[in-house]
Amino acid sequence: MIKDIINKKRVGEELSRSELEEAFLGYLKGSVLDYQMSSLLMAICIQGMSLEETFILTDLFLNSGDQLDFSNIPGIKVDKHSTGGVGDKTTLVVVPIVASCMVPVIKMSGRGLGYTGGTIDKLESIPGYKTELLEDEIMKQVGDIYAVMMGQTGELCPLDKKVYALRDVSGTTDSIPLIASSIMSKKIAGGADKILIDIKVGSGAFMKTLKDAEDLSDIMIQIGEKYGRETRTIISDMNTPLGRMVGNGLEVEEAMDVLQGKEKGSFYDLCVELASQMVSMGKDISVSDAKIMVEDSIISGHAYQKFLDIVSYQGGRMDEFSVSQNVLEISSEVSGVVQSIDALEVAKLSCLLGAGRLTKEDKIDPGVGVYLNVLVGDKVEIGDVLLCLYLKSDDKGEYDISKIFEIK
Amino acid sequence: MIKDIINKKRVGEELSRSELEEAFLGYLKGSVLDYQMSSLLMAICIQGMSLEETFILTDLFLNSGDQLDFSNIPGIKVDKHSTGGVGDKTTLVVVPIVASCMVPVIKMSGRGLGYTGGTIDKLESIPGYKTELLEDEIMKQVGDIYAVMMGQTGELCPLDKKVYALRDVSGTTDSIPLIASSIMSKKIAGGADKILIDIKVGSGAFMKTLKDAEDLSDIMIQIGEKYGRETRTIISDMNTPLGRMVGNGLEVEEAMDVLQGKEKGSFYDLCVELASQMVSMGKDISVSDAKIMVEDSIISGHAYQKFLDIVSYQGGRMDEFSVSQNVLEISSEVSGVVQSIDALEVAKLSCLLGAGRLTKEDKIDPGVGVYLNVLVGDKVEIGDVLLCLYLKSDDKGEYDISKIFEIK
Repeated sequence: MIKDIINKKRVGEELSRSELEEAFLGYLKGSVLDYQMSSLLMAICIQGMSLEETFILTDLFLNSGDQLDFSNIPGIKVDKHSTGGVGDKTTLVVVPIVASCMVPVIKMSGRGLGYTGGTIDKLESIPGYKTELLEDEIMKQVGDIYAVMMGQTGELCPLDKKVYALRDVSGTTDSIPLIASSIMSKKIAGGADKILIDIKVGSGAFMKTLKDAEDLSDIMIQIGEKYGRETRTIISDMNTPLGRMVGNGLEVEEAMDVLQGKEKGSFYDLCVELASQMVSMGKDISVSDAKIMVEDSIISGHAYQKFLDIVSYQGGRMDEFSVSQNVLEISSEVSGVVQSIDALEVAKLSCLLGAGRLTKEDKIDPGVGVYLNVLVGDKVEIGDVLLCLYLKSDDKGEYDISKIFEIK
Repeated sequence: MIKDIINKKRVGEELSRSELEEAFLGYLKGSVLDYQMSSLLMAICIQGMSLEETFILTDLFLNSGDQLDFSNIPGIKVDKHSTGGVGDKTTLVVVPIVASCMVPVIKMSGRGLGYTGGTIDKLESIPGYKTELLEDEIMKQVGDIYAVMMGQTGELCPLDKKVYALRDVSGTTDSIPLIASSIMSKKIAGGADKILIDIKVGSGAFMKTLKDAEDLSDIMIQIGEKYGRETRTIISDMNTPLGRMVGNGLEVEEAMDVLQGKEKGSFYDLCVELASQMVSMGKDISVSDAKIMVEDSIISGHAYQKFLDIVSYQGGRMDEFSVSQNVLEISSEVSGVVQSIDALEVAKLSCLLGAGRLTKEDKIDPGVGVYLNVLVGDKVEIGDVLLCLYLKSDDKGEYDISKIFEIK
């Protein structure tokens, strides 16, 4: 009985495989109801799950849907996932770099729900860019140019999808074993040989503390091992936004700048680190050797050219790409040093401008967003420009930015 | 936002009045959904609630519906509630005793859901007995004979009703503050001046340990105090069934035996204790003085006569009352001393016979049930009758009773 299973987890006991199957497969087929699953999920959030339970749940997610097979494509396919953050356009930078080092990458991304757009929303700011590809199209493109950047194909982990949607609305997102099994099941179903996870930690991320991020890392690595998919993790800061731009088209622009080596700093460093790990995994070489290849590909222009190749292969027309021309500069009323930039507040502002969606039905404006003219540590005088708002054509730009910067 | 409230309780923080209102009143009007409330309830089950939160929740339950007012009836009205157990027919015994001591009692009871019938189901095994009374009928009857035994009138605590129904199906019944606020809000809304709570502890009860029962007692007394309703509690054993009979009509028979002093033992003692506490509260006298009155009323036959008066006042025809004549004796295959009788197993058996309902739509058979011919501590020889099954006329009585008795 589902009530007995819920009660068992309520008092902190470990659930068996058959109990987890009864609860989760029952939920998928509708015999376990939303309000029963949400109380079980809350009990899991508070009481936790053992490693064994986490393995079983991953298995249930994985086997609920399709599992892609790209073993026909030669080479070690490496996938990358980020636990999500504000202004996270690393995929747009890292995939071209890795592909330019001749490591095949099949990168499937999602749309954003929350304050900012997802990678697919960003790619769709390029006119004509096609995010839905068939399996043989993927094969051909990866064979020709080593990379695709696309939306999800097939029906991967429908059980995870149903559970995730419920977690999102029932206050039960915050559980390390639930996050680990959700992400890893999708990555394994996606067919990659090796997996790199970028775990974000900080005010703008799910993981608020380093300890939590490390725990999540441990579990993910062990799940990967269980399925014979080597998994590495990087723990990176998400207290301030990644880079200077938040907004779909703006983030494509910034990615192009980084790929050309025009924009250095912590975001550039993160991209190099991620790409080096992926090349190291894909070519079975040391990270330091991989890093030399990665930096070479940026300096030589190969990485940027690979980006343009991918875009044009998938139908994108870069010459028609643009962002909003209605730009409003906002200046500082105080002087001092930028102590912090609140990633969550920047995300909320960009959502207000039209760059995100709060319900699945909301339409995104690809041209709007926020450009941060100053970063943490910069000195600011009264009248210096703090940020630029890229606005819809009829938007007067009357927004409160007082919660974003701390300047002292 | 409801998600923020759920998350706050998930990490064990105290909720404010406005947060509890947003969650629970939102649930009543439908803006908070079942799966959100059930995850909040699970967080409350595990993380607990402070006394202040429990007061606030009681208040929200209480103010969600009608509050009855019997201040026109002279005297101190005392109500009694049991946290529920197997074979609990104490109401049928205690109310007539207390009324025969001229303490007014307006006893509203519920139907059973679970393995055994509720007090209303038991009373309805008497042909003609009317359990629905209007307010002026109550006034007149209590004025004339000091007591009514009836179903609930008015709409008391609809919020509690909705939350209780969800708790029942989402594995979130087991929470001391939730149980305390649910019971006390209904008792206070029922209009009694003073309240006696019989807290059952043991394998057949919600409270499994004495410590839990004591905690529940503390909170209930403090809630009563807060509303100016003196509240007393008794903690009584529910490891074995109460008395010898489980089944609706059978329990009415047993209640009549006890009222006539024909059946002594632990169930008789419990009834005397409960009645003495109620008379003590209703007359503001010591419990020992009250106990003398209570025992006098049993010995003199006044208590039994009061039972018959109540039944006939409410239309019951005792001359037409009967139980099943298809009785099957089951004998022991071993010899030894009865170490234990599992209350829950007896309840399940009586439900299989047709005495309980598992869904609201199930029909109860008033004549069926179980008679325990031996009690804990009795010596048993091979061939001695352990229990009698009162069966439906076409029932062959093939039931497994092996889990009920432990005989060594």
